[in-house]
Amino acid sequence: MLGNFSYCNPTKLYFGADSLHYLNDELPKYGKNVVLVYGGGSIKKNGIYDKVVEILKANDKNVAEIAGVMPNPTIDKLYEGIEIARAHRADFLLAVGGGSVCDYTKALSVSVHCDEDPWDKYYIRFEEPTCETLPVGCVLTMVGTGSEMNAGAVITNPKAKLKIGHVFADEKVMPRFSILDPAYTLTLPHYQMVAGIYDIFNHICEQYFSGEDDNTSDYLAEGLMRSLLHSSRIANKDMQNYEARSNIMWTATWALNTLIACGKSTDWEVHMLGQAVGAYTDATHGMTLSAVSLAYYRHILPYGLKKFVRFAVNVWGVDPAGKTDEQVAQEGLAAMESWMKELGLAMNITELGADAGMIEGLADATLIMQGGYKVLDRSEIVEIFQESL
Amino acid sequence: MLGNFSYCNPTKLYFGADSLHYLNDELPKYGKNVVLVYGGGSIKKNGIYDKVVEILKANDKNVAEIAGVMPNPTIDKLYEGIEIARAHRADFLLAVGGGSVCDYTKALSVSVHCDEDPWDKYYIRFEEPTCETLPVGCVLTMVGTGSEMNAGAVITNPKAKLKIGHVFADEKVMPRFSILDPAYTLTLPHYQMVAGIYDIFNHICEQYFSGEDDNTSDYLAEGLMRSLLHSSRIANKDMQNYEARSNIMWTATWALNTLIACGKSTDWEVHMLGQAVGAYTDATHGMTLSAVSLAYYRHILPYGLKKFVRFAVNVWGVDPAGKTDEQVAQEGLAAMESWMKELGLAMNITELGADAGMIEGLADATLIMQGGYKVLDRSEIVEIFQESL
Repeated sequence: MLGNFSYCNPTKLYFGADSLHYLNDELPKYGKNVVLVYGGGSIKKNGIYDKVVEILKANDKNVAEIAGVMPNPTIDKLYEGIEIARAHRADFLLAVGGGSVCDYTKALSVSVHCDEDPWDKYYIRFEEPTCETLPVGCVLTMVGTGSEMNAGAVITNPKAKLKIGHVFADEKVMPRFSILDPAYTLTLPHYQMVAGIYDIFNHICEQYFSGEDDNTSDYLAEGLMRSLLHSSRIANKDMQNYEARSNIMWTATWALNTLIACGKSTDWEVHMLGQAVGAYTDATHGMTLSAVSLAYYRHILPYGLKKFVRFAVNVWGVDPAGKTDEQVAQEGLAAMESWMKELGLAMNITELGADAGMIEGLADATLIMQGGYKVLDRSEIVEIFQESL
Repeated sequence: MLGNFSYCNPTKLYFGADSLHYLNDELPKYGKNVVLVYGGGSIKKNGIYDKVVEILKANDKNVAEIAGVMPNPTIDKLYEGIEIARAHRADFLLAVGGGSVCDYTKALSVSVHCDEDPWDKYYIRFEEPTCETLPVGCVLTMVGTGSEMNAGAVITNPKAKLKIGHVFADEKVMPRFSILDPAYTLTLPHYQMVAGIYDIFNHICEQYFSGEDDNTSDYLAEGLMRSLLHSSRIANKDMQNYEARSNIMWTATWALNTLIACGKSTDWEVHMLGQAVGAYTDATHGMTLSAVSLAYYRHILPYGLKKFVRFAVNVWGVDPAGKTDEQVAQEGLAAMESWMKELGLAMNITELGADAGMIEGLADATLIMQGGYKVLDRSEIVEIFQESL
């Protein structure tokens, strides 16, 4: 049954080739003092930085910069950005980058005018902002996290070995607009592309593998998965295929903007397992998910058998004739494993730099979620990490 | 290929049983003078009117009413409403009803402060509002049109025998919020329920049967169709099934809020044919669509064969093994026809009150769309109406 829910997602999206010029339509809506946020400098190499700065200048903006936002943005980097934004009396924050840069910028948006320590308030106590929040715009250059159209912000605390995501309830935390030009993603290395693809796929799985009902959200999730499988196979062989890359980009947005979670329970345990691996190894997010997924899904399969059968048939085209539910479900996961290997995803945590000695620590760092087919106990988490070695 | 597009849909949705109380959260955001818009009085019989009025009073609103909005709201009714809203100095318009009431209220929103004749401006010249628009909220009591989360407004001019829909580009025309309680739809007669179900299905078809690419929008459309088929069969046998009715309600919203049209061409010719029938017979909208659909789709099938094959396989589960594309495609439409008969939909225009003598007039009243697999000429329109008799 579709449970009660509310849905509101006001982010304006400009999608397609050469859509950066829409920045000219949006910038006049905000104040003069802009903080431009970006990552490791790839936007300087591919020319996007120059184009954005030119548009900011043409719109007479007073610009400060936060550069070097890392793949798993840290709380220390956030503290640094807060100082920069305060000193600049920021009116508007412009993120140019992938999910990490977008996440960081949203975390900054709720922290600049916050009197408390944002780590304690947002990532330990999971509170909503009580201060003024700064409007955020995004120019997306990497695909996967869906951060361009949601109110989520993952921040890592390396000292505490914690990587925690907070999805804010307040739609004001969502970007006011996001510019999605699939051509910007064409220069990504293959490793980053497939990690993003798996991140998208897993976002859908986390919302799909939960609940027992035939609701619209699960049908939409299947549509997104089928689209992603189709386009990922094309992009894997031909990274410059704009059609495939554009569909992957659009799928990513809808995989994590709350639509396919409407009215149902969700899981997110794979993200908890993967985020623990990320906190220990600093590995690419999507690869931390792929490395633990199959061990997890095979572990919970008996508890959600009906859904795993549906997944096998509706997503992977498994023919159920003459097979037990268990066989159909296992065949679905085997098909998923083949696809993952075809893409070249990390299939275990060892290749990401984890080892047996880390397992107790990884288990300590893994939050236990309540929405999936089986609420794990600590021994099961240890077992899943061992099977993922 | 996903073409360039922008997407923005800020309507806040409150979905679920007993969600009417959220009106208390929304009303304080708007001014004191509210115009309450509703239809033929069913909301007085089922108690929704009393509940809404009670909440309006509790929020200290000054309320005027526009009652008697008909299933195909007329331009004369719109002129009448403009006078009422102007006399009341309306700050906010609250629609309580189905798609016709929502459509009418959005048309009113762009007309109250409009100096020109809204028929000429919005339905002949298809202009965007240049005046102040009044904010609209919806309490939905019937399902099908998707009007609760889009910027569309269909208005009928009976003298000119024209029923014309205008989908405004300006997202300010979309409802600020809509309250969707599936329980409100449980009292509808079976005829209205299945007409609404076919309206939803056809909205998806109009966006699906166009373009040749494997894009995400078509995969989402297939997900919505599969969900609708599943739930419609349950609701057809058991109208009081809340789970099925709630999924149908949610599918309706996403079938026509622009998502599944993103980046692709769309058709809408069935709506043009059906709206002509509606202008002549005043028949229920969904039934005018069902009555002309199969003749239309069989006519265009050769021009969009690949998509009709995909439709047969992915939506209707047709096994393509050993069959020609033409056979697979026809089998898909045959499965669709069986489902339509199972629901008890109007299968021809004769049963809606049309006759052979009207066909020339119907053809005159049918707009020719450019986005489908075949741009019809007038003789083809006549032929489709003849086959629909």
